Order: sequence, then structure tokens, then C-alpha cells
Amino acid sequence: MGSSRAGAGLIPAHVSALALLRSGEVSCEEIARGVLARIAERERDVHAWAYIDAEAVLEQARALDRAPVRGALHGVPIGIKDVIDTQDMPTQMGSPIYAGYQPRVDAACVALVRAAGALIVGKTVTAEFAGTAPGPTANPLDLRRTPGGSSSGSAAAVADSMVPVALGTQTGGSVHRPASYCGVIGFKPTQSAVNRAGVKAAAERFDTVGIIAHDLDYVDAVFRVLTNGSATSPLQSQQPSRVAACRTSLWERAQPETVAAFEAGVNRLREAGVRVRDIDLPEEFATIGAARATINDFQRAHALRSEWQSQPDLFSPQLAVLVRRGLTIPFEQFAGAIEHVERCRAAFDAAWGDLELLIAPCVDGEAPLGLASTGEHHFQSIWTTIDVPSVSLPMHTAPSGMPVSVQLVARPWREHELLRYARWMNGLASGRTDLSR
Amino acid sequence: MGSSRAGAGLIPAHVSALALLRSGEVSCEEIARGVLARIAERERDVHAWAYIDAEAVLEQARALDRAPVRGALHGVPIGIKDVIDTQDMPTQMGSPIYAGYQPRVDAACVALVRAAGALIVGKTVTAEFAGTAPGPTANPLDLRRTPGGSSSGSAAAVADSMVPVALGTQTGGSVHRPASYCGVIGFKPTQSAVNRAGVKAAAERFDTVGIIAHDLDYVDAVFRVLTNGSATSPLQSQQPSRVAACRTSLWERAQPETVAAFEAGVNRLREAGVRVRDIDLPEEFATIGAARATINDFQRAHALRSEWQSQPDLFSPQLAVLVRRGLTIPFEQFAGAIEHVERCRAAFDAAWGDLELLIAPCVDGEAPLGLASTGEHHFQSIWTTIDVPSVSLPMHTAPSGMPVSVQLVARPWREHELLRYARWMNGLASGRTDLSR
Repeated sequence: MGSSRAGAGLIPAHVSALALLRSGEVSCEEIARGVLARIAERERDVHAWAYIDAEAVLEQARALDRAPVRGALHGVPIGIKDVIDTQDMPTQMGSPIYAGYQPRVDAACVALVRAAGALIVGKTVTAEFAGTAPGPTANPLDLRRTPGGSSSGSAAAVADSMVPVALGTQTGGSVHRPASYCGVIGFKPTQSAVNRAGVKAAAERFDTVGIIAHDLDYVDAVFRVLTNGSATSPLQSQQPSRVAACRTSLWERAQPETVAAFEAGVNRLREAGVRVRDIDLPEEFATIGAARATINDFQRAHALRSEWQSQPDLFSPQLAVLVRRGLTIPFEQFAGAIEHVERCRAAFDAAWGDLELLIAPCVDGEAPLGLASTGEHHFQSIWTTIDVPSVSLPMHTAPSGMPVSVQLVARPWREHELLRYARWMNGLASGRTDLSR
Repeated sequence: MGSSRAGAGLIPAHVSALALLRSGEVSCEEIARGVLARIAERERDVHAWAYIDAEAVLEQARALDRAPVRGALHGVPIGIKDVIDTQDMPTQMGSPIYAGYQPRVDAACVALVRAAGALIVGKTVTAEFAGTAPGPTANPLDLRRTPGGSSSGSAAAVADSMVPVALGTQTGGSVHRPASYCGVIGFKPTQSAVNRAGVKAAAERFDTVGIIAHDLDYVDAVFRVLTNGSATSPLQSQQPSRVAACRTSLWERAQPETVAAFEAGVNRLREAGVRVRDIDLPEEFATIGAARATINDFQRAHALRSEWQSQPDLFSPQLAVLVRRGLTIPFEQFAGAIEHVERCRAAFDAAWGDLELLIAPCVDGEAPLGLASTGEHHFQSIWTTIDVPSVSLPMHTAPSGMPVSVQLVARPWREHELLRYARWMNGLASGRTDLSR
């Protein structure tokens, strides 16, 4: 799928960097040249990047070629969402307030992948402060459509075969929505799994560093580097035995292509002999959306209190409305919302029983036409709110030709299990090429 | 106690700023001059400040005097721990790596108090990255003794009547320990109550913005400003009915003055007619210290990964040891530690029953002699780890003349109740002057 999206018959070498570099078949510089050529070819249309310095990327690559292999990501090209600090590139947050802003140090997640040898290609476009006001990025699969947000550039850059993997963040649905809209893999771990130092706060109760990638081996390799893990490549496949199918109370929002994607996913599981049981969300979830909005607005308004004080005119209209609202939410309402979310989480945890995995819709539907909105977060944010790890897989194609993902959800801290199930599930998709298998 | 500590017969006006400014009896500039005079007199001995610009403080004060009253903290002098970003002052983290570092915007907590009219006096000394390697601060009550840490300068500045209130942070015991050692009030809310945007991450699972103050009205006023609250001055007093006395499993660490402080506190409650019931911590707490250490080391090492990569020579020996250890902790051990802490929290929550308040020891003992260590965190960190709000009250005086606090703990999000109980409890202390009553 990657190669056809890229409009070439073969998978470009830089997209297969992980495997090729490990085998020593290519140099980091060759990989870097492939990345830069692809970006030069396509960036005018896609606008995935907020910052890139081609010469500096080549220098980084040459330095990697000269030095001994530093770690599991040696030479692997990676894009960094532009709300994540980088010591050698500006971090502009999708806001004119941060035009040209140069952080002093890398965010923890950047420092960890850099120390493991990753080639930091550049900063990918983010919606304003990882919120809802979009940047200039277009969906590479159909330039008239939104790539989703807020990790717009990370998803578009991966989908367009510019880089095989990118870091994003998810507070509502900012990893999985763009991943689904652009037809690539999204991964959101348990919140505390990946350190957030140096990531611009949106709503700290929910902010999570995630990964958007061309295939699951990249997700696995990057996640291990971010969590003191050791590399075990390739990622193994594991068939689940007991899976829950959860349409959620938002099911009526699901557009036909989402219904089709979800039902196809469930059918594939059943056809493979997996026991799939329909489950409803516990009744506490009836008001989880309102609780999430309260926490989100309260925390985002506080996190931007300084910028709001000094440069309110540089806020987008929608963010200005949110900040004004957030600064008036009573503390008791905020605290009550957090307590409610904790009850949801406990109820959901109790409902797991002996289930190993849950399959759920990922998005309302395919990427909408137009670039003014990044789409709706509800099918993604429900799982972010209760802080469970999730993977989204672009297993379905809508009649329009656009991809639609399904979401796999596991219990907290079961990321490795989840990724093995995802590999197995991905293998069920007909017509997809999993690059690393 | 404040006035006798300050070596003057009367409470200086700038320490009573909250009440005086509200009544219009003094100007912000007069308050600022009082602050600066006191600092000029004592800073050579105490070393509470990492940064202060007297002329800029006076300008701030004059600007406040010229403008209409902006909020509930109009003119109130406040110190800011030097791991908290300030847009107009360097933020040096107690580390040479950040010498002269000037953040672009205020941390959320600074922006909120600034918007409410607070007079930002300067940056108070922190232990290196809010860890254990001390800065130059001495205990103003006895210059041979540590002020505690890591919010060393915040506690010393308040105790020495330089400012009436300061912001600190607590990851283990960094608010309550220095508050107790210096004989002032400490307050740590539920973690999510006060936004952490712009606060240098230590261990994000535990990092909490707290308040150190001369009296409870400052705690109440600042906390309300930090949480969208409206001012209700003065803070009301409320007598609890059912209190738990919890010596914790660390009781054998308690030095005689801590035993005396705790027993005196319990006796005062009983003499006032409060039902006090001894409780033990749930059995899950037997290993909470080890779980906390795992999480702390893993997260601190990741949060400083960039600094560690570029300037390892500028780390203190103890922090270098911690980072090396933290980078090798397996992900599964880290995840297991978080799950264990969550079980402790749930067990503790279930144990509350109809209790309203808990009284616990605050510190091992009085401030130790010497400045090389900031003391032990165990009696404080147990409550930080399960994320319950707590107040420390310096109600007891050891034979040496040094203060020893007791700690009051409430359920999550019951900060306002907790502060009313604390006011009532503080009123039981004989020989103490509560400035605002």
C-alpha cells in the first residue's frame, strides 16, 4: 500500500530503512538522500513539514555513517511533530507566537531516539498547539482532503513515503485520526510509558506521545527505544483468543465506511477462529465526553495562560473561545470530571474479565473533503480519556478509495502484547503489504 | 513565630501584604521596599535566591500601583522556585547546564498568579533539577542547618520573612520537608489541581506544584488563583469530627522530636473533642517505597536524557548515578511499579470509610546540621506517591528550638476542606500567632 500511495512500483529504500540498515545494505547517507528526494518531489503539494534543513540532514547522516552504530534506530529517518522540542531545530507549535522559537534541549522522546541513532529529519506540521486549528498540510492520498490532526504532518509525511516513521502526540485523537485518514499505522501507548518532558502541554491529563509509522516494525522499534527496551526484530505475530467488539455509544456517528471497516475487521477475526464477543461500554461512559471536554478545556486554558496574557491576538478564533471557556470552569467541576473519568476507567478495567483485546471503530469515516477542519475526535478520544494503549490499522478501503482504520485496544501497559496482536491482525488484511514480513 | 524568627518585634508589613493590600493601607511599592530591605539584610547569610533584580521588582510594584487592581493577589510578593519558568527572569534549575537560561513564557502557575496581580519577586534556590543535590541555601532559623529541599529557597525565603509566600514543587517531599525544617506552612494539592506547563519535569508521575507560606490565608488565596477559584477571605476554620492517626510503617525512623510532634498533635485533637482513630496503612504499602523509587528513577533519567547526552560532566555525582540507573530499569519493572502504586491508592481510598482527615508525621526529625544533604523524604513521599493533598503545620518546637511539623492528609480533591481543617488545627497550637486571625 505504501508503494502504491507513493506512486512508485517499488517500496523506496528509505522506507525500508530499518531492515536495510540493519543488514548493512545501505548507508545512512543514501537513506537520507532518498528521504530528501521524496520530500523535494512532493512537499510543495503535501506541506507535511514545518521545518527541514536538507544540508543538516545530510550532515547528520554522514556523521552516523562515520560513527559506530549507536543503537537500534541507527540511520532510521524520523519526523518529529512540531510541539516536541528539538535542540537543533525550531519548535513552532503551529502558532505564530512561537515563530522561530529554538528550544535549548531535546524533548525526552527526541533525545532517546537520537541517542539510539535515529536520523532526525525535521519538524512535522501540527495543528495550533496540538489543538484543532489546522496547519497547511494536505492529505497525500487526495490533496483536497484533510490529513486529520493534530499530528497532521507526521501522518502525511509517513503516508507519502517521505519518512517511514514519525512521532506525534495524542490528547484526544491526534495520532489515530490522521493515521486513519492518511492510511498509515497509529500507536498510542499508556500515557506514562513515554516521557513527556519537552513536549508542549495541551491537556496534561491526556497528552500522550505516540508513533505514526509505515509498518509495525517501526512502531515496535521506536517504542522499545523510548522505554528502555531491547530490540527484538522483527516483531512477532500473536493470535488473540478472546476479543471484544465494542461499537461504543457513538456508533450512530459511524459513517458507512466506518461501519464497513469495523464489521470487516470483526468478520476477519471470526473467520480466523477468534472468539469475538460484543460488549457495551459501562454506563459511566454515558457522560465521559462531557467530562473529557471539561478537563481538556480547563487544562488547555491554564497551559496557555502565559501566551494568552501576552499575545491573545495571535490565537486562532477557536482556540480563543476554548481558552476563555477554560478559564471560567469552576475547580469543583474540573475535579468532578477527573473523578468521573477515574470511575470510567475502573469500570472498564473491571469489565475486561478474561478478554485479551478489544476492536473498536477508529474514526467517524474517511478523511473529509476540505482542509478547514481536521475531523472529529470522538472515536479516538474515548480511549485516550481512560488511558488505554491502542493501535490503529488501515485495513479497509472506502468506495472513494480512501482508507479507514480499525482500532485495537488493550489493557494499560500491555503494549507489547497489543503490537503482536496487531501484527497478526494486519496479516489478515488482504491486499496489504506489510513491508517487514 | 514569624516575627520572632525575623528577629523583629513586629510582623513586617510586607509579610502581612495580603491583608494590608486588601484594605488599601499600603502601596505595592511600599510592600516591595519592605521585601527588598529584608532580603538585602539577610540574603548574604541565607542564600534563598537564585535570581533577583531589585530595580525590576520596584518597577513591577509601581506598575501595579498605577493600574487598577487586577486580581486577588494584587501586590502580594511571591517567590518562584527556580525550576518554574518565568518570562522575565532566568530559570536555572539549580544546574550549571541552565546558567542564564531565559524561558520564552511563564509557566502556567506563574502566569496565573501574575494575572491576579502578584508581585513576582524572584527565583528561589532549588536543589539541582528539583532533586537531591543542594544549592547554597542555609536554614534561616539556624544557619548551620539545611533548609531541606528541593524547594530550599522557597522555604527559607518565607521562613526568613523575605516574602510571605512562594511556589515550590514536590515529587517526593520537596515542599513539606523544607517547610517543616524552616518552620513554615507547606501545601501539596492533588497533582492535577495545579497545571504543570512550564515546570521542569522531574518525575512526571509525581511532580506537583505546591505552596509554601507564612500563614494559611496565603495558601488559600494562591491556590484559588491557581484553580479558577474565587477569593473568600479569610479562610474559614472547620473542626473535623473523625480523624485517623497514621504513624505509617516508617514510624521507627521517627526521631524523638517527630514522635513528640505527632503525639502532641494527636493529643490536641483529642483534647478538643475530636474522635481520633489509629490506622495502619494497607498491606500493599509495604513495598510502595521501592515502587516509588523505580518510577522516580526511570522518569527522571528520561526527562534529563538530552542534558545527559550533551553535558554529563555538569551533573552532580548523585544525579549521574540516578540517571545511569534509571536508563537501565526494564519497562516491565517500571510499568509494574506504576500498577503497584495504583493498587496502593485504591486500597487507601477504600480504607478511608467515613474519615474526614488523617494526621501523620511529616519528617524524620528537625532540620539536620550541615548543608550537604537536604534530609530524608520518606514521610512526605508516601503521600505524594498516592497523590493525596496534604498540608504541613509547624506546630511543634524541638528541644533545640527547631520546628517540627505534622502533616494533615485528605482525600483527593478535598483541598478546600483540608485547608479549613488546617486552619482549625493551627488554632490549637499554643504560642503560635496565625497572622491573619
